[in-house]
Amino acid sequence: MLSEFALIRRYFDRASPADGRIALGIGDDCALLQPRAGMQLAVSTDMLVEGRHFFAGTDAGRLGHKSLAVNLSDLAAMGATPLGFTLALALPSSESGWLAAFSGGLLALAEQHDCPLVGGDTTAGPLTISITVFGEIAPGAALRRDGARPGDDIWISGSLGEARLGLAVLRGESLAPLSEDARGTALERLESPHPRLPLGQALRGIATAAIDLSDGFTGDIAHVLERSGCGATVVVDSLPVGAALRDQSLALQRAWSLAGGDDYELCFTAPADLHDAVIAAAARTGTPVTRVGRIDAAPGLRLQDAHGAQVLAPPSFDHFQAS
Amino acid sequence: MLSEFALIRRYFDRASPADGRIALGIGDDCALLQPRAGMQLAVSTDMLVEGRHFFAGTDAGRLGHKSLAVNLSDLAAMGATPLGFTLALALPSSESGWLAAFSGGLLALAEQHDCPLVGGDTTAGPLTISITVFGEIAPGAALRRDGARPGDDIWISGSLGEARLGLAVLRGESLAPLSEDARGTALERLESPHPRLPLGQALRGIATAAIDLSDGFTGDIAHVLERSGCGATVVVDSLPVGAALRDQSLALQRAWSLAGGDDYELCFTAPADLHDAVIAAAARTGTPVTRVGRIDAAPGLRLQDAHGAQVLAPPSFDHFQAS
Repeated sequence: MLSEFALIRRYFDRASPADGRIALGIGDDCALLQPRAGMQLAVSTDMLVEGRHFFAGTDAGRLGHKSLAVNLSDLAAMGATPLGFTLALALPSSESGWLAAFSGGLLALAEQHDCPLVGGDTTAGPLTISITVFGEIAPGAALRRDGARPGDDIWISGSLGEARLGLAVLRGESLAPLSEDARGTALERLESPHPRLPLGQALRGIATAAIDLSDGFTGDIAHVLERSGCGATVVVDSLPVGAALRDQSLALQRAWSLAGGDDYELCFTAPADLHDAVIAAAARTGTPVTRVGRIDAAPGLRLQDAHGAQVLAPPSFDHFQAS
Repeated sequence: MLSEFALIRRYFDRASPADGRIALGIGDDCALLQPRAGMQLAVSTDMLVEGRHFFAGTDAGRLGHKSLAVNLSDLAAMGATPLGFTLALALPSSESGWLAAFSGGLLALAEQHDCPLVGGDTTAGPLTISITVFGEIAPGAALRRDGARPGDDIWISGSLGEARLGLAVLRGESLAPLSEDARGTALERLESPHPRLPLGQALRGIATAAIDLSDGFTGDIAHVLERSGCGATVVVDSLPVGAALRDQSLALQRAWSLAGGDDYELCFTAPADLHDAVIAAAARTGTPVTRVGRIDAAPGLRLQDAHGAQVLAPPSFDHFQAS
């Protein structure tokens, strides 16, 4: 078995970018980062536990990708630019094929978003992955959850519900017949989400609030409404249901786009008169966006169908309570 | 059972310091920190797994303390000033007595070192604690592992081996009779280490290299020697053996001070002509320090007794290989 140090060196230690952002990388008591003078540091942490956030036997490369993607998605939701990340990894055994695939998926996404691994910790234990990601953003420019105002439009990037379909496939849940394409898309959405970093950065100065959709739209937007001290009306039939869900029942399409979870899309608000600026930012970054509702002064989330009739919200996912 | 959000709010969400350092704390996609302009950011992460780094049933308050202490010790070894930390916590169940004690121990140490909790993630899972800590330090001022030079003195703060004695107590290993005081000290050293932050900061501009002693002196100093491209001669009989070990055999005192692990003291090097500056920094911060050897040009670690005879090094602890 490899020692901790040999393991890190072999699988995780790559050259730092030459731009001076990483003054000291892996191998000391701390890494040293050099943010640009005056910039704020955006920090987020997530922990993925086998059997809870992913099934035993999940493809190691996709798991490496997803572990970083869910953290980068938090940076995207703030509009921040990635600086680097740390990895803490508990592993039942240091199996070299698994480690090569895991670090391959992880570091490929890191490179794609110019977000180098700067430090970490590995230990034996039940498979658990904890990543902390750092980004930088100018003071006042962050897209927070507390900035939504009555009259703002509510927008969603990409599409919803396909990751939940992927989970149904893995769980063997009863589904309408599924094409190979739809099945592949659903698993790809579940296991290899693509953080919306370009869109988040393009929305600085336009969006009033943003959040990434990890637990499901209704649960996540509730955080924006609570922190912004307002409510919302959302037209459920305008939600961007993923194409892979096309052959499933309308009830299931609605439930999973409202509360399926694991979408890793951005939900954001913007003043109605910045509608065209939102569309331009989306086009510039090649990200589809859909307007799904409006922020109201009255507290609470009101879901309507296309005819204005009330729709009841399905329950949202809670990583602690769900069993 | 509490929801994830209620749990965080009840046990972990405290007011941020009013100095503007934390622009946004717990409750958004990211926390926002405001380092002073031009400062570097020191980052370190550690993961503690039940049954690996601590026994099931360990006092929750001490576990909270230790989880942060081992990370602060890394900041101390860089000479950095704490800014804040994130916590990722997997818990088998959200038992309120345990959570209150854990967060109490954790946040008391955080307050003592002015290092607020800025964000986190909680999930169900095997008890696992992953903390990432951030500090700031002026460019060029960090105490790295690669700065030791031939002729430098080697110093150690505090004393060694008592944490390993605490582990022996918990494991029921065979020991010479132990006073209640020695037993209490040993358990305190194992479960509630005190990071040497004031000393680390006082050594800026004096020490040429530093590392914190977590795996054991011989294993840890080897990292300094490797990265600095030099060797060392250490007089084993000059190592500061903890007073609680006084009644144990000399062989055991020597083995545990050389390679017991979990000491969380600083080992640092400094030019011989800065001897008095080291003593003054130690006195100013109320930290005992002991000179234990000298950096040599020839690679390798040479251990000698007081008579100059060679002593063989016991094996060091490896969190991945040890069983």
